[in-house]
Amino acid sequence: MYRPEIKVIDCTVRDGGLMNKWQFDLKFVRHAYNALSEAGVDYMEIGYLSSAKAFDANEVGPWKFCHEKDLKKIVGDGEKTIKLSAMADIGRIEYEDIPMCSESSLDMIRVACYVHQIDAAIDLAHHCIDKGYETTINLMAVSTVGIRELNEALEDLEKSRVPIIYLVDSFGAFYSEDIDSLVAKYKERLPNKTIGIHAHNNQQLAFANTITSIINGVNYLDATLYGIGRGAGNCPLEVLLSFLKNPKFKVRPIIKCIEEEILPWSKKIDWGYSVPYMISGTMNQHPRAAMAHMESDKKECITDFYDTMNAPG
Amino acid sequence: MYRPEIKVIDCTVRDGGLMNKWQFDLKFVRHAYNALSEAGVDYMEIGYLSSAKAFDANEVGPWKFCHEKDLKKIVGDGEKTIKLSAMADIGRIEYEDIPMCSESSLDMIRVACYVHQIDAAIDLAHHCIDKGYETTINLMAVSTVGIRELNEALEDLEKSRVPIIYLVDSFGAFYSEDIDSLVAKYKERLPNKTIGIHAHNNQQLAFANTITSIINGVNYLDATLYGIGRGAGNCPLEVLLSFLKNPKFKVRPIIKCIEEEILPWSKKIDWGYSVPYMISGTMNQHPRAAMAHMESDKKECITDFYDTMNAPG
Repeated sequence: MYRPEIKVIDCTVRDGGLMNKWQFDLKFVRHAYNALSEAGVDYMEIGYLSSAKAFDANEVGPWKFCHEKDLKKIVGDGEKTIKLSAMADIGRIEYEDIPMCSESSLDMIRVACYVHQIDAAIDLAHHCIDKGYETTINLMAVSTVGIRELNEALEDLEKSRVPIIYLVDSFGAFYSEDIDSLVAKYKERLPNKTIGIHAHNNQQLAFANTITSIINGVNYLDATLYGIGRGAGNCPLEVLLSFLKNPKFKVRPIIKCIEEEILPWSKKIDWGYSVPYMISGTMNQHPRAAMAHMESDKKECITDFYDTMNAPG
Repeated sequence: MYRPEIKVIDCTVRDGGLMNKWQFDLKFVRHAYNALSEAGVDYMEIGYLSSAKAFDANEVGPWKFCHEKDLKKIVGDGEKTIKLSAMADIGRIEYEDIPMCSESSLDMIRVACYVHQIDAAIDLAHHCIDKGYETTINLMAVSTVGIRELNEALEDLEKSRVPIIYLVDSFGAFYSEDIDSLVAKYKERLPNKTIGIHAHNNQQLAFANTITSIINGVNYLDATLYGIGRGAGNCPLEVLLSFLKNPKFKVRPIIKCIEEEILPWSKKIDWGYSVPYMISGTMNQHPRAAMAHMESDKKECITDFYDTMNAPG
């Protein structure tokens, strides 16, 4: 039996964009939008919400900004067929650059933050709520946060008006037992919130940890087409939809979109399980060193990478 | 804390050989043997034990037979540094072709069978025990076996002298909840046996299901270098060793062997997660249709594959 509270959020354009500077063309994003709608996915995270001055538009594609004019090219003038989300990073968006929800194609803004940014994140999320958006706070890199600090952050989040709080395994470091114990903590400390999960695949556990989260009562689930995303990538949407029992989910449009849009990108950019990402995951490290290694001409020198990561001092 | 009863069995040459007809050269197999020894892995499954007349030696490599003369080329004349295992398929090996263990470099023979072959498998395993070998029975494709039939097979296995019984997810169809319930059944019905797990990665769950098995008390764990194996492949040895806490396990020799021996093969043969294997896994089907699709010139036509597998009738 399915749990009607479960919502699936596709992060293909937002998280996959980390691998190609959000240079997905209109055909790609339109196809993803239509396929995700048809598949019954609840939200499409179509990019980052950033101020124009925060990034050089010659360097990054339009989905780094999510300007309304670009969103309109995807959703057209009719009724939207799927809710749209954008992620906001602390410090990359000015409050005055966020339109009222009633004037935007976006339905949800997800605020990503590290634990030291929690007050700024709550403030930004409250601002978004007041403008009419659904909001979440996605507390990143929890695998590196100490217990006292995490407890304080969760206390602040519980007191906030933000209804949905994400457990984010930024480094792909968690085993199922970590998910068990962290979700238990989140549920205990956030009794009035909905919990979400965003997993990375460094140890081939993104889908498994998402299942473990579901079993523990997590209801907001992030995934991407064919797992596209930074480094080792994310929970693949096609396996997640195949697992969920809700008959509203259809996997065929997802497979078709993978065939037509994602497989061509898989020849141009490199994501998914590989030994350097596995190493950074098991060491609970940011993937940036592994990504630099994978982008170098020595990407197959994986023993060198292991030795560098394990060098004394 | 680690559990000393846990044994890790590397199946690189045996299961990976399904993808290249066991055409690994001596350098490859020697390097794997040395790396696995150095890494503290308990067993190396070096191939299949088959009678010479069962296969054409012009078509399949020496590791399909595991003749003693070929094993000697790997282990040399000194003391062996890791235990060796070979798999035997019912009907592919004549009893008289199995040497006495005292005259063989093999320590263990693992008998693979389907549920209807359980009597033949027990008989063959008893024969191997009587010749001095450690033995296991690996009951394949359990995901397709009915409850009554499985209970009867487990009853027969419990009565046998075979000490180790494997739960085999041949089709990569199991979720963690299936592992929970099947391991509970195996432990209940086989109170005097050790349980093993052999997982496939069709849904990116091979490692996760191995962890779930460990949590449930399974002690024999199959894995391969970089997950090499039939179709979607197996539990990657490098993530498994990184997870296990026993300090005898070293991951560096494994990474070095992957770099030098497995990455070159990854350019010649195709294994690992892909949508056709995901589809056959979620549908609890033998991977042969997906493998045929992946070997065709239409491997990227994944929507066609989905439609064929879901055709009415």
